[in-house]
Amino acid sequence: MRYAEVYLHRQLVPHGGLAGHTAVVFDVLRASTTAAVALQAGAEMLVPFADLESMTAFRAGLSADLAGRCLLAGERGGLAAPGFDLGNSPGEFTAERVAGRIVLFSTTNGTDALERSEEADPVYFGALVNLSALAELMAGRTRRENEELALVCSGTELSASLEDMLAAGMLLERLGAREGGWEMDDGALAVLAVAAQWRGRETEAMRQAIGGRNVAALGLNQDIEAAAAVDSVPVVPRLVTDWGALAGTDVLVKAGG
Amino acid sequence: MRYAEVYLHRQLVPHGGLAGHTAVVFDVLRASTTAAVALQAGAEMLVPFADLESMTAFRAGLSADLAGRCLLAGERGGLAAPGFDLGNSPGEFTAERVAGRIVLFSTTNGTDALERSEEADPVYFGALVNLSALAELMAGRTRRENEELALVCSGTELSASLEDMLAAGMLLERLGAREGGWEMDDGALAVLAVAAQWRGRETEAMRQAIGGRNVAALGLNQDIEAAAAVDSVPVVPRLVTDWGALAGTDVLVKAGG
Repeated sequence: MRYAEVYLHRQLVPHGGLAGHTAVVFDVLRASTTAAVALQAGAEMLVPFADLESMTAFRAGLSADLAGRCLLAGERGGLAAPGFDLGNSPGEFTAERVAGRIVLFSTTNGTDALERSEEADPVYFGALVNLSALAELMAGRTRRENEELALVCSGTELSASLEDMLAAGMLLERLGAREGGWEMDDGALAVLAVAAQWRGRETEAMRQAIGGRNVAALGLNQDIEAAAAVDSVPVVPRLVTDWGALAGTDVLVKAGG
Repeated sequence: MRYAEVYLHRQLVPHGGLAGHTAVVFDVLRASTTAAVALQAGAEMLVPFADLESMTAFRAGLSADLAGRCLLAGERGGLAAPGFDLGNSPGEFTAERVAGRIVLFSTTNGTDALERSEEADPVYFGALVNLSALAELMAGRTRRENEELALVCSGTELSASLEDMLAAGMLLERLGAREGGWEMDDGALAVLAVAAQWRGRETEAMRQAIGGRNVAALGLNQDIEAAAAVDSVPVVPRLVTDWGALAGTDVLVKAGG
């Protein structure tokens, strides 16, 4: 038997409750999508921050050498914030811009969701763009008896997010959760229902969802298209805290195959 | 335009955030089902408590006359607790037992969900058994322009509950939310997906859900059957705090037609 529990919003994750689990955190619009794209484009690692202030303070504390390798990605009102190198749109994270760089980026909901999940091991950052790569990584683990899988939908400050639930449900489907041999909680049953209704209509789902409406209102329709491009990025970000000069900090690196 | 927001778990309700809304709180297994059944059987009112201790303390503070009209409903390990008149199974709330009585009953999740929702007006306690009665009450309200509807799924201490999401989704369907003219949040879209998958298979949904598995493990399969009996009870409990001798306390009474 394999076990799957799905947290429909990060606030429902019990603090410290994910020890012993394999976790996948979803923040499809836009942090987990952008992280996968950036690592595929050759970024050495990404460091998530809850706000721009903590990001700039972090860089100010680095050695000149390390600080010089950092790019700052963050937005105010949907565009790259003054003094920042990049916004948060996946399309900005090209090899030309990010290859070999350490990308500091802001994502309020994603950072909080990753922190709440960090007792799990491994912790992956999942999206629609890397579902197949995720499923491949997980398949080995879920073949183990008694593997406990926790999927965390980041949501927004105020609400669950449809696109996170859709991605979680589609990942469960790819892991074979509809075919038996899994014990699932009610959150898992709910995201499977969301996947049954919206799979194949990912762009439409996001346009109806609050996150997508907000992104569209900023004129960033291409971000929705990028986030809805299922399996377009064969890279999975993994959370580690023991990365060389940044040991002790939550950073995202490319997961091994 | 009408507005519907759905909280997939009571912990997601912002404190004080439901002022100006019409709210429906769902705790299908078993509090909201039992409350509807008890009021139909002629109970004068119900008073929800988070635990047995606060319930007995409350009765101890009443006048002898009022205390004598009270019945205590609560369970330990699934059966009526020692010294209590009733358990929490809907089937126990017959006219013979409860007509004309004030029923004090324990429901940890339901009590918390009602408290978090009490700035709304009205606040209804909804279940599958009274969906049609609820929809009829709400239809008048949702014909008003700019009516804001908040549906609150109580869930358990640890997780969202499939049966609460199913009931919320089926209520939205009956209010015409699939036919346009509604602005919905992602929670609403999620429960509509749950309803699309499980409508007509309510008993099966509960048998797969954690709450139903727990109830079945207690040998209380008849409680699942009772809770899954869509439209079997034409009565809606409404939360009021200004009820005669119990003014200032949250009580549930039969909603007007």
